[in-house]
Formats: sequence, structure tokens, C-alpha cells
Amino acid sequence: MPEPVLLATSQSPAEEAIWRDALARAMPDERIVTAADPFDRSTVAIAIVANPVPGALAGLPALAWVHSLWAGVERLLQDATLPPVPVVRLVDPTLARTMAETVAACVLALHRDLPLYAAQQRRRAWRQHPARAAGACPVAILGMGEMGRASAELLLGLGFPVRGWSRSGTAIPGLIAHSGRDGLGTALDGAAYLVNLLPLTAETRGILDRACFARLAPGAGVINFGRGAHLVEADLWLALDDGRVGHAVLDVFAQEPLPRDHPAWDHPNVTVLPHVAAPTDEASAAAIVAGAVAAFRSTGRVPAGVDRARGY
Amino acid sequence: MPEPVLLATSQSPAEEAIWRDALARAMPDERIVTAADPFDRSTVAIAIVANPVPGALAGLPALAWVHSLWAGVERLLQDATLPPVPVVRLVDPTLARTMAETVAACVLALHRDLPLYAAQQRRRAWRQHPARAAGACPVAILGMGEMGRASAELLLGLGFPVRGWSRSGTAIPGLIAHSGRDGLGTALDGAAYLVNLLPLTAETRGILDRACFARLAPGAGVINFGRGAHLVEADLWLALDDGRVGHAVLDVFAQEPLPRDHPAWDHPNVTVLPHVAAPTDEASAAAIVAGAVAAFRSTGRVPAGVDRARGY
Repeated sequence: MPEPVLLATSQSPAEEAIWRDALARAMPDERIVTAADPFDRSTVAIAIVANPVPGALAGLPALAWVHSLWAGVERLLQDATLPPVPVVRLVDPTLARTMAETVAACVLALHRDLPLYAAQQRRRAWRQHPARAAGACPVAILGMGEMGRASAELLLGLGFPVRGWSRSGTAIPGLIAHSGRDGLGTALDGAAYLVNLLPLTAETRGILDRACFARLAPGAGVINFGRGAHLVEADLWLALDDGRVGHAVLDVFAQEPLPRDHPAWDHPNVTVLPHVAAPTDEASAAAIVAGAVAAFRSTGRVPAGVDRARGY
Repeated sequence: MPEPVLLATSQSPAEEAIWRDALARAMPDERIVTAADPFDRSTVAIAIVANPVPGALAGLPALAWVHSLWAGVERLLQDATLPPVPVVRLVDPTLARTMAETVAACVLALHRDLPLYAAQQRRRAWRQHPARAAGACPVAILGMGEMGRASAELLLGLGFPVRGWSRSGTAIPGLIAHSGRDGLGTALDGAAYLVNLLPLTAETRGILDRACFARLAPGAGVINFGRGAHLVEADLWLALDDGRVGHAVLDVFAQEPLPRDHPAWDHPNVTVLPHVAAPTDEASAAAIVAGAVAAFRSTGRVPAGVDRARGY
């Protein structure tokens, strides 16, 4: 029996059991324990985490590395008790593909005025609005990791001009790549749709603000699939009020589930999604983690983790 | 001054004026008249029509051909007073592209459960539903004319398996083509989404019926962008009630504008669009008609019309 692998989440017992089962199926030779199980903390080399409660990884002297079951690790890195070991974030092609489909769905829904027609339907109004051609509606994607690149490819295939903005200026064929603060303005200038897929870092916090919205085409669509803290909510409400932004699709919020008294729920020009843009596929994520664990068991080499200073 | 070109519509004077202006810009050397103008009916060789009132084309002894400003000509062909001259329907690549974007928007909206999440938002419910992969959700497209082919190409690019059904079994790369009554069943079997883009003929009237819905995957999405008479409404309500069909997007209706007491307006699983899937682009349509008129003026040859027996 090898030393145990610690699974640490902040989820309900039922949700944690789903993860435990998926991981057990993906790596049947490993002994997976949670905080509720009896086990020797001094022998744990690997922790698998999904938003663990702060301190969950303290007091593990043999801990060699941590694998997150999520792509975003900004909360984990904020835990001051997190030991200085590599933290591996989930990079799942299935997840990128799912995100790209949701991005395409939301850009096209705004492009064809589906929220506007839904509002008309509720008051039984039969009124036609002009259709725009995709080729005349640039999309700015902030964040060009796996999800941004997969989204850009689908949007290019649909005929939208696509601009990508990232720290490194990642380029893919057919896309106009931008980087840096100046590049951000250029990427946003006159964009009909803004899609945020950035990781949350000190530099990207609050990036969706008044200055950002001011660069977009009048009545632009804003889609936030990054993190709630990327968005300055007060700036968005003002931009929606004055028509600078026509409609916003928000999938992520500072507090989730979104509190029942939050103004996003009944804003006529806001679509609220319950953090479903790219729901984790437990089987796919467990298989990826199992691969990393098997490689560590056979080679003893600790996998490369995220850049903690950068935040992703 | 050449003999006049007759513009015949059943639209309001303001709408007819938009067409007249667009046509005048596209063919400035032609004299365009409407029924309200003084002109010699015996000299009219060309009529340009948008759903003309029955009888509008009677009493034109020199009429050589008719160009429709619409793609669908089924009402025009039902006019018993229509002279036996070629009727040309609008084939506009811009229109096909617009339709394809709307098809992609609606398939993806259903695929990502956007109507379900919109209903949840109205009652402030934060609840996640599993996402499906496009590759696991076949789309059946009925009608493989310009619009069907353009739609198939976009959906294939998004990763959906696509089956096309048409009279002739038109094939495009990557698509499974079917034709005939047997082929219809095969195209529909287990399809997650059904998109109707057929012309309305005696053979296609009522094609979206109980037998059709029974072949689809449980909870399938049905999108009718053809004509209202393709759909047997009573069968759709039953299929929605028993869950055979999960959601329907209806853009066309037997009576338009949709009467205020029609049950589609407030059915929770029906999206009503006001005939906007592929709104005519007046400038683009006028340019296409002008090209046909110029070719006739220079060669004297009458363009090929639709097959009246077939209906399109």
C-alpha cells in the first residue's frame, strides 16, 4: 500500500465523493484519503485539491506537490499556509473545448439579439431588428491560454474578426495578437464583443472597468468567463445605463452562488449564468491527474507548477 | 426611356418605398413603377415582386419574366392569375450567410441550455446542468439549398456531426447526405437538433410532425426557419409536453405577425422569433436583381425560373 494521496476540497460530502470516486476509477492502485479519514499526515507526498479550505495543506512535512482539479488557482495561492511546493493547475483540452463552445454560443446569441427577442417574447411584441454580419463585428478575447485559443478558432470559423490579448502576445493563424497595456487598448478599440478568459492576478484584477468599456463599439457585448474580481461591477452598471455596453453575460461573481439580492439577477441587459461556461468534467480531470501521479510514482520527478509570482 | 419595370409588393407604402429606393440605386437607368404610378401595362416585360397581392401580375401582355425579392415563392406560385412566365427566386449569398449564423446561434444556445438558464435567472435560481460535447450531438438539417449548405458548414466547423436531408441528396464535405422518405428517417434518428430550412411544397407541408419528432433523441431541440406550414403545431405541443422535444425555436408561423393569443408566446419551452432568421438585405437583393435585369437588357434572354411543379 503506497502512502496516501490526500484529496482536499471545500465541497459538500456528496460533491467530494464524486471526485473521490472519479479519482479512484482513474488510479485504482492509489489510496485516496480525505481529511475525515484516519491517515498518517507525515507520509503524504501528493495532494489533489479543489478550492481547499485555508490551512488544509499545512502540517504535511513530506508534501512534494499539489495538483488542482481546477484551472484557476488564485485562491489556493493566497493561502499563506500553502507549503512552497509546485502547484499544478488543471490543463484539460476537454475543458478548453467546452469553454470555446460556450463562448461561441454567447457571442452568437448577442450577435443575433436573442436576449432582446426573448424580452420581446415576454411582452408578445413582434418587432424585427437589423442583423449584422459577423465579418463586421470584431471580437476581442482577453487571455490566450488553451481556452482563449480554442475560442478564437471557433469564432474565426464563424467569420468574426478576432483579436487576442495576452501577456505574451500569443498568436494563432488568422488572429491579430496584442500584448501589454497599449496593446490592450488596440485590442479593445471598436470591438463589438469582449470575451474575458484571463487568469486572475494582481495585474488583471478589475481589468473590466470604465476605461475598458470606453474603448468598445457603442452597444458592445461583454462576456465575463474569467473571475468575478476581473469586473468592476459599478462601472458595468453605468456602461449598461448609458448604452456603451448593450448586454453583459456574467458567469462568474465575487460571491457564488450569486446572492439573491444581487442587482445582476433582474437587470434587463444582463444574462446570469451559474458558473457553467466550462464545467469541470470529473472523469476527464481525474484521468489527467492520474497521469501526473503515475509519472511521479515511476520517475520520482515532481511536475512543474505554476509561476506563483505570476499567479498562473 | 426603356419600358418600365413593375415593382409589385403587398407591403406598406413606406416598406415599398425602401425597395423602390434600393432598386433605383442598383439600376439607375431603369424606370421603376408601382401599381400607383401611371404607366402603360402593355409594355411591361419585367416584374419585381415581394409577396404581391393576387392578380397584381395579370393584364401584362408583354410580361417576359418575374424576379422575386424573396427566396420563398410558394405564395406567388399559388396565384392562379400568374402568367406562365419564368419566376426567378432570390438566391443571395448574403442571405445564406445570415441564415447560417442564426442557425449556429440557435443550435449553440440550445446546446448550452441558454433558455433554461434564462428561466432560472428569472426566479434567481443558481443551478448547474451538465454540458454536452458538440461531437456527441448530431444535427439534422432538412433542406440543403444555399442556406442549408452554409449552415452545415458553420455547424461542422463548431464540431457537430451534421446530416443533411434534401430531395436530391446534396452532399458537401464532412456531411452525411440523405434523401427520400427512408433517408428522412435515417437523417432524424437520434438527432439532438433538427433544423428545418426546406422550401414549402406539397411534399414538405406538415413534415415537422409527430412521426418526425419520434425519431429524434429525447429532449431534442427543434428549430423551424422554413415556413409555418411545415410544422404541425398540435404535434409539437404534445412532443414538448412529453419531453420528446426539449425546446423549440420558431421563426415562422402560419399567421404573421403571430397573433397575441397564440400559445407559442408563453410556452416555457418555445422561443418565438419574429421572422428574423435571415432578414432580406435590401441593398444586396437589389444588386442581384439589377444584375439579372442588366443581363436581360443586353442579351434579350429570359433567365431560368423555378420549377413550378416542384415549387422552388
